[in-house]
Amino acid sequence: MEAYFDNSATTRCTQAAADVMQKALLEDYGNPSSLHMKGVTAENYIKTATAQIAKILKVSEKEILFTSGGTESNNLALIGTALANQRAGRHIITTAIEHASVYNPLIFLEEQGYEVTYLPVDHEGRISLEELEAAVREDTILVSMMHVNNEIGTIEPVEEAAARVHAKNPRTLFHVDAIQSFGKLRIYPKRMGIDLLSVSGHKIHGPKGVGFLYIKDKTKIRPIIHGGGQQRDMRSGTENVPGIAGIGVAAAQIYENFDEKIDRLYELREYFTAGMQAFDGVTINGAHGRAAAPHIVSVSFAGIRAEVLLHALEDRQIYVSTGSACSSNHPAISGTLKAIGVKPELLDATVRFSLSVDSTKEEADYVLAQLAELLPQLRRFRRH
Amino acid sequence: MEAYFDNSATTRCTQAAADVMQKALLEDYGNPSSLHMKGVTAENYIKTATAQIAKILKVSEKEILFTSGGTESNNLALIGTALANQRAGRHIITTAIEHASVYNPLIFLEEQGYEVTYLPVDHEGRISLEELEAAVREDTILVSMMHVNNEIGTIEPVEEAAARVHAKNPRTLFHVDAIQSFGKLRIYPKRMGIDLLSVSGHKIHGPKGVGFLYIKDKTKIRPIIHGGGQQRDMRSGTENVPGIAGIGVAAAQIYENFDEKIDRLYELREYFTAGMQAFDGVTINGAHGRAAAPHIVSVSFAGIRAEVLLHALEDRQIYVSTGSACSSNHPAISGTLKAIGVKPELLDATVRFSLSVDSTKEEADYVLAQLAELLPQLRRFRRH
Repeated sequence: MEAYFDNSATTRCTQAAADVMQKALLEDYGNPSSLHMKGVTAENYIKTATAQIAKILKVSEKEILFTSGGTESNNLALIGTALANQRAGRHIITTAIEHASVYNPLIFLEEQGYEVTYLPVDHEGRISLEELEAAVREDTILVSMMHVNNEIGTIEPVEEAAARVHAKNPRTLFHVDAIQSFGKLRIYPKRMGIDLLSVSGHKIHGPKGVGFLYIKDKTKIRPIIHGGGQQRDMRSGTENVPGIAGIGVAAAQIYENFDEKIDRLYELREYFTAGMQAFDGVTINGAHGRAAAPHIVSVSFAGIRAEVLLHALEDRQIYVSTGSACSSNHPAISGTLKAIGVKPELLDATVRFSLSVDSTKEEADYVLAQLAELLPQLRRFRRH
Repeated sequence: MEAYFDNSATTRCTQAAADVMQKALLEDYGNPSSLHMKGVTAENYIKTATAQIAKILKVSEKEILFTSGGTESNNLALIGTALANQRAGRHIITTAIEHASVYNPLIFLEEQGYEVTYLPVDHEGRISLEELEAAVREDTILVSMMHVNNEIGTIEPVEEAAARVHAKNPRTLFHVDAIQSFGKLRIYPKRMGIDLLSVSGHKIHGPKGVGFLYIKDKTKIRPIIHGGGQQRDMRSGTENVPGIAGIGVAAAQIYENFDEKIDRLYELREYFTAGMQAFDGVTINGAHGRAAAPHIVSVSFAGIRAEVLLHALEDRQIYVSTGSACSSNHPAISGTLKAIGVKPELLDATVRFSLSVDSTKEEADYVLAQLAELLPQLRRFRRH
């Protein structure tokens, strides 16, 4: 048996998304900027994907901008709005538990003279709305906050946060990194007060190398990649037609029978978490039940090195992450785990299991059964 | 019959490139940053593509950086080196006939306080080596020059240019936009003195949404997209594994039996050009023979509007461009045609035919036969 429980790192592409990509690669391969029919056909793939995504978010089609992925979406949201709004101010607010693709563009902006406030989080990883409100100033141009934390799954109160921010400073833009929440939660930027929203294709069973940024109409933002003026001059470069078609199809698929799928996924998460809690020396990190996303389970195993457990599980065809795989090139200890106060001795003893809508109870049982065998062995091994 | 003569806008992806992408999407879908076997398998796709490309260019594998396409490669080469070298100077040299993906990042840098010198070109579109050398200063940090012009196909003397630049100022970096030359000419950055070289996947029968930048070892350059630190911290974001695998395969394929293919393509270009010259009121723009790339034929048709001809050809399943399709969202008159002194009345009467290694003599005959019918009709139509 195999259990791929690393879906927060990346997901398997759906057959339908791969099929539409294949067609765009081999048959409808025109350049959307070409004036002839092959260009028009290619452009129609983009129009279809845009319509699919706009419908899910209940936004206008012209508010969807395709990028090369979640990282570029976050970079554009942060650097693009900072460049465009520097006359209004140079203050930005974020949280202590953001992904590196938010954190590092902000470090870059700090070098360029911007000031960044990092909000702390509680032991479940949630910001305080009062602290957020207090941090908003006259010169605050942007608040950037993730929707679902990639390491522990906690859902941030983005709707309430946006309301408080906009009440205190109506000119402050509100950006949400929805890379771990799109396809897991319903997201309506208009109702939720979100001005910018980042999404990645390969986290929702679409292709790698494509993502999008929702940009509310009339938002002041500048491009970070300059050239031929594609996508209304906001993101130059020949559009990645196959990738865009793929993310459109994957998005439409994941929001089909959505409530049913997500209810089932929450049930599976509960089942898996309960099984995990039956083991000795185990701590589940982050929020519980519907306060967390349905797919991420962060578990600290006292007395076991996460990397050793990861490889032992790998030998049994179980695939998991130690921290956030996206930044595991930097083997620094997780910022989120520290920020929520995980005990120092558990920091490198923490594994992330991440499910997908395709995960099954059989897989969960298999993982639990293997852990039941492995945990005592690994603890014994460590004692020698 | 159909003749797709718009291969400088984009090309059909090869079956082999599409196949490897399909496998990376559906089977080997891991995140290269993941520590387990699925991550390693995904990383191996990247290693293979890197090796394929490094071998073609005769460079080291660590000198290849994957991007989301030619536009990002150019942006990174220009903005990334400008940011990294501003203490050494803020002067950049380029030519008057660059693509928008070089031109517009330079406009952005001018706004940031950089100074850009635009070199004129002769009537065939070639820069003067003397003028280039004279323009290089103590504070010149970068020279950026295209290898093959995308509108007329003229080959720039990049090797001689690099030698003159480095002789006058050894610290000046030399960037080549090779988006129209890679896969058409042999390129050896080390021998040619090139520090940075931009390539796009979809111009060489690979996928859209992927490209690479050759960055000579030890070149001072900063990333423009920040995040998880992938690709040695130079380009963050989960790697586009399917796209990278696709560009690797496409690059390897196009350089197989290369001389034979390119000789044949030059023959076809000569044949097609000769047929074209037999018509009345026709001018071929740019350089001739081996002084031009083997795939681009720019033709001005006196008394005919290019867009009208484009659509008339389209009705006969012949696909061409008026200007450079990549920037045809901006319907401004071509910068290159003006810069080489094409007569004002011919500026909007110019069509680009662009061949590929898959183009045939039968297709060329078909296009010439259709033009023989259409040209008198369209000229008559115009007179009414």
